[in-house]
Amino acid sequence: MDNSILSGIHSPQDLKKLNNTELEKLCVEIRETIIQTVSENGGHLASNLGAVELTVALHRAFNSPDDAIIFDVGHQSYAHKLLTGRYPQFETLRKKDGLSGFMRPGESEYDAFVTGHSSNSISAAYGIYRANVTLGKQATAVAVIGDGAMTGGMAYEALNNAGGKKSKFIVVLNDNKMSISKNVGAVSRSFMRLRNGKRYHRLKFAVGNILLKFGFIGKGIYRFINKIKDAARSYVYKNNIFAALGFNYLGPVDGHSIAAVESILEIAKSYDRPTVVHVVTQKGKGYSYAEENPNDYHGVSPFNIDSGAEKTVKSDFSAVAGKTLCELAEKDLRICAITAAMTYGTGLYGFSKKFRDRFYDVGIAEEHAVTFAAGLAKGGMIPFFAVYSSFLQRGYDQVLHDAAIADLPVKILVDRAGIVGEDGESHQGLFDVAFLSTVPNVNIYSPYSYSELAYRIKRTAEDGELAVIRYPRGGEEFAFDFDYSKDYTLLSVGAKQAVVTYGRTFSYALTAVKKLKNFDIIKLNKVFPIKPEVIKLISGYKTVHFFEEGIRSGSVAEHVASRLLEIGALCEYTVHAVDGEFVSQQTTAEALRTYGLDTAAIIEAMKQQ
Amino acid sequence: MDNSILSGIHSPQDLKKLNNTELEKLCVEIRETIIQTVSENGGHLASNLGAVELTVALHRAFNSPDDAIIFDVGHQSYAHKLLTGRYPQFETLRKKDGLSGFMRPGESEYDAFVTGHSSNSISAAYGIYRANVTLGKQATAVAVIGDGAMTGGMAYEALNNAGGKKSKFIVVLNDNKMSISKNVGAVSRSFMRLRNGKRYHRLKFAVGNILLKFGFIGKGIYRFINKIKDAARSYVYKNNIFAALGFNYLGPVDGHSIAAVESILEIAKSYDRPTVVHVVTQKGKGYSYAEENPNDYHGVSPFNIDSGAEKTVKSDFSAVAGKTLCELAEKDLRICAITAAMTYGTGLYGFSKKFRDRFYDVGIAEEHAVTFAAGLAKGGMIPFFAVYSSFLQRGYDQVLHDAAIADLPVKILVDRAGIVGEDGESHQGLFDVAFLSTVPNVNIYSPYSYSELAYRIKRTAEDGELAVIRYPRGGEEFAFDFDYSKDYTLLSVGAKQAVVTYGRTFSYALTAVKKLKNFDIIKLNKVFPIKPEVIKLISGYKTVHFFEEGIRSGSVAEHVASRLLEIGALCEYTVHAVDGEFVSQQTTAEALRTYGLDTAAIIEAMKQQ
Repeated sequence: MDNSILSGIHSPQDLKKLNNTELEKLCVEIRETIIQTVSENGGHLASNLGAVELTVALHRAFNSPDDAIIFDVGHQSYAHKLLTGRYPQFETLRKKDGLSGFMRPGESEYDAFVTGHSSNSISAAYGIYRANVTLGKQATAVAVIGDGAMTGGMAYEALNNAGGKKSKFIVVLNDNKMSISKNVGAVSRSFMRLRNGKRYHRLKFAVGNILLKFGFIGKGIYRFINKIKDAARSYVYKNNIFAALGFNYLGPVDGHSIAAVESILEIAKSYDRPTVVHVVTQKGKGYSYAEENPNDYHGVSPFNIDSGAEKTVKSDFSAVAGKTLCELAEKDLRICAITAAMTYGTGLYGFSKKFRDRFYDVGIAEEHAVTFAAGLAKGGMIPFFAVYSSFLQRGYDQVLHDAAIADLPVKILVDRAGIVGEDGESHQGLFDVAFLSTVPNVNIYSPYSYSELAYRIKRTAEDGELAVIRYPRGGEEFAFDFDYSKDYTLLSVGAKQAVVTYGRTFSYALTAVKKLKNFDIIKLNKVFPIKPEVIKLISGYKTVHFFEEGIRSGSVAEHVASRLLEIGALCEYTVHAVDGEFVSQQTTAEALRTYGLDTAAIIEAMKQQ
Repeated sequence: MDNSILSGIHSPQDLKKLNNTELEKLCVEIRETIIQTVSENGGHLASNLGAVELTVALHRAFNSPDDAIIFDVGHQSYAHKLLTGRYPQFETLRKKDGLSGFMRPGESEYDAFVTGHSSNSISAAYGIYRANVTLGKQATAVAVIGDGAMTGGMAYEALNNAGGKKSKFIVVLNDNKMSISKNVGAVSRSFMRLRNGKRYHRLKFAVGNILLKFGFIGKGIYRFINKIKDAARSYVYKNNIFAALGFNYLGPVDGHSIAAVESILEIAKSYDRPTVVHVVTQKGKGYSYAEENPNDYHGVSPFNIDSGAEKTVKSDFSAVAGKTLCELAEKDLRICAITAAMTYGTGLYGFSKKFRDRFYDVGIAEEHAVTFAAGLAKGGMIPFFAVYSSFLQRGYDQVLHDAAIADLPVKILVDRAGIVGEDGESHQGLFDVAFLSTVPNVNIYSPYSYSELAYRIKRTAEDGELAVIRYPRGGEEFAFDFDYSKDYTLLSVGAKQAVVTYGRTFSYALTAVKKLKNFDIIKLNKVFPIKPEVIKLISGYKTVHFFEEGIRSGSVAEHVASRLLEIGALCEYTVHAVDGEFVSQQTTAEALRTYGLDTAAIIEAMKQQ
């Protein structure tokens, strides 16, 4: 690749010296670099390709890092990274100790705020902006948010707070009509109306015609008609959610014209009111496969650039969950499924096609999703909300307040539970067992295999319980079948030491124990709550080793420990979990090794006993 | 009181037989009953007085319980309770085993969903509505939501999901211009514009004048002007957040006219599109003190009806927090304060007046509040977000993702931590230690006295740490001063048994231990994380007794237990906390007794050792 221009960009200041021809070539170089790197490392492709010109324009119009530019979610921050001195490291994207696929302040002063979870950019940018004002710093803050992220309630809360007050605060709406998959809901439709703006154009035409016809009419009607024109323009430009929330609205503008975006950003900077700039972009721009199927190229594994084909095709827990729900829904009208903008990721695409009326993509709205599910349950349905572990953190209060107090039979399928790999800190599913086990009335399961997952989904659909079924990203290790009807499965060789574990880790532990021979293994089919009989079983061992792919604080090991001490059980105890830290990006295999949770690490730990 | 009509209402069906005179008298009786009961039991007064006619109209227009009517937050559900067969029990309001001050499905089939936390009603009602549609049940669901609750992001997520689809789903906006205190933010201003609707009226006038003047102009311009009239009308009626989100908008209508509200609800029922009915009410209606100062009569303790004066005046932890922040802000420009619509409740009223530019009431928006605080911290400020424990549950993900990953020095003042008393399940602050101690980088403190709270606030303002300072509702028990600079304070008589505790419970434990004499007491000044030296100290005791005013699962007792077992410390162990259940309404004193957390209960438990 000839990256002669890109390689000369060491900071955004360098961008400001380029002429139009150079800028055009730069965008080509950026796209090629992104496609090349993502084809090797995996990552977010289509969204990043769509934001290239927009990012160049932003960095020309503003002075980062003094001006904070926050790319919401971070699915569109690659060009930003390439333009802020990180081109030389870009090939380390998403690798251990390499560049993050999201914004990470620890990585660069140009990454003003952590991104990864949707819809936080306006809140964060407004905070930084207000700090600047208070401390007398002459700098602004800009939130760049996609139309998908605009479905999250946080974005609305932030707009409500920032709107209508004198300020130079700017929000850029990067409208690619897509979010992660096809955007849904009323907000998205309202953006579509703005893009099309037909009503405004039609009205303007009508007014023009009338003027032509009645050219002789005097000043009065001329002024009147101008007033009407204003009203009509207002109607189109102000009848949108941003205007209702006290923001100036500018746009829509072609997001692939650097000049157009720059001009409109300059206009935005001239206002003393909070302003939204509506930029229309095309997801996947510049890579034909991604342009045609932006869904398939949102988040990708390594792929072949020429054919567009992903290098690995895998079955996974998500697919099994989706298939099992379809089987249930076929026979039972009460089964329904909910996703927060993750129809593909959670394996629900098939369900969404087969059972349109019982499938709900609610947008990136985990809070609403949980409570909506609780409402469905209250109304007699059996709702399954499939959601990534780290995103369910958004619904903690709703699980407690809206599902658990009334003990409604909501079913939560927690996908991506445990280590997720290259997405890093913000996406690891390390906290679900800990925070969900604080909730009275909740029942937590953690299947280790496809057949156990299918069994558990079917079983919980029959039980009128508030249930959480958690499973990892990716596929099963192997699939011996056990009896899952009890809360635990004991595999005993009559040893004095026991390994206690669940979920994916059970696979590794079982392999380890088979090699070591002098350990029993207790597989927790039900992770929480733990019945007294299980405590009693555990208390019978001289030494107990817990292996959990999650945060230690609030883990099952901790719950069990206090029960053991209370009944005077004096086990020797070891706990293997993630202790008080976030897990940075690396492959899942690397992370499991680092935290002592793969077969080899388990063997090593046990040998020391 | 002559409650001859109210006492004859056994279900909403009975309402439908009343004539206008009877309805008017009924409203008077409802108001008198509410004022009487709240003056004795405490509760939410002003909001309930404002919703009397609205509730009567709702129950006449719909068929509850078939039609689910969900009163958001529940601050306006008293009339609903009185009209749904609970008049005879109304004097038990907010008492142990009595009627809840919020909606509780366990209490009555007319309470369709749990309320207490703001902004969940649209999600829940839409869930119930969709269940009805799927299961072929001919009934609807209605969410009744205040303008304050409309500042919560969940409400927006739900509107986005429900908007624009064919349905008979109805949302009633109960606009009292107030929420809990004076409503803030852009949404509130947009409701105000709708209420006033001046622009529409002016335009209509202009159009009328023109028609008068140019009466001779032909058909063409007549049609054109009609088109313009429509556009103008659209501008006024559609330029609002509901229209942008795909809802029909009806209103505004006088919420104190039963006939007006009934008519508009009947119109709403006739549509096949989701519809918002905008009802304007007056908070405190019918009780002069509450009309004049709705803030002061939002949530009240028992009071004297004639004078309006509360029977108890108390100092409390909230006031100390507010005062301490003022002292700090005086000297340091970086100190700022954030509340999510709880300026009064969190003791920040004084701060809000003194430091207008550094005070942020962000609306009922805990998610935004945490991330906004993180943005402020990133920008160099020292932000204190004061929030009730149970409402901070909404911000769990934001603490993890936006504050903790980048380890930003956000300070969270967790008010109402522990038992709160009469508000019951939804408001108990039982979970904060458990869910916040799952978060890496967080430091949790739990002062027991005013002076310790002031010390801790000052200390954490100096430290660049992510800190949580939690304290109970109400006041301190006593105020011996200790050295709080270490993580713990040991009060030793050289005993072999130790009580470990923190916060308010320390007061009771200290009193108990003083009487018993043969116990040491370890006061945890820092609740999390627990340093190895503290584990070592605890491990030196033969018997250890934990007392914690919070949920057991995820408690400090559990964290410590696993550490003790790991170092082979074989303590006898007892844990006194709330174990796997929600705490129902009762006085704080009653609840502390029930859960073994007051002085007498601690003595009793220790005597058995």
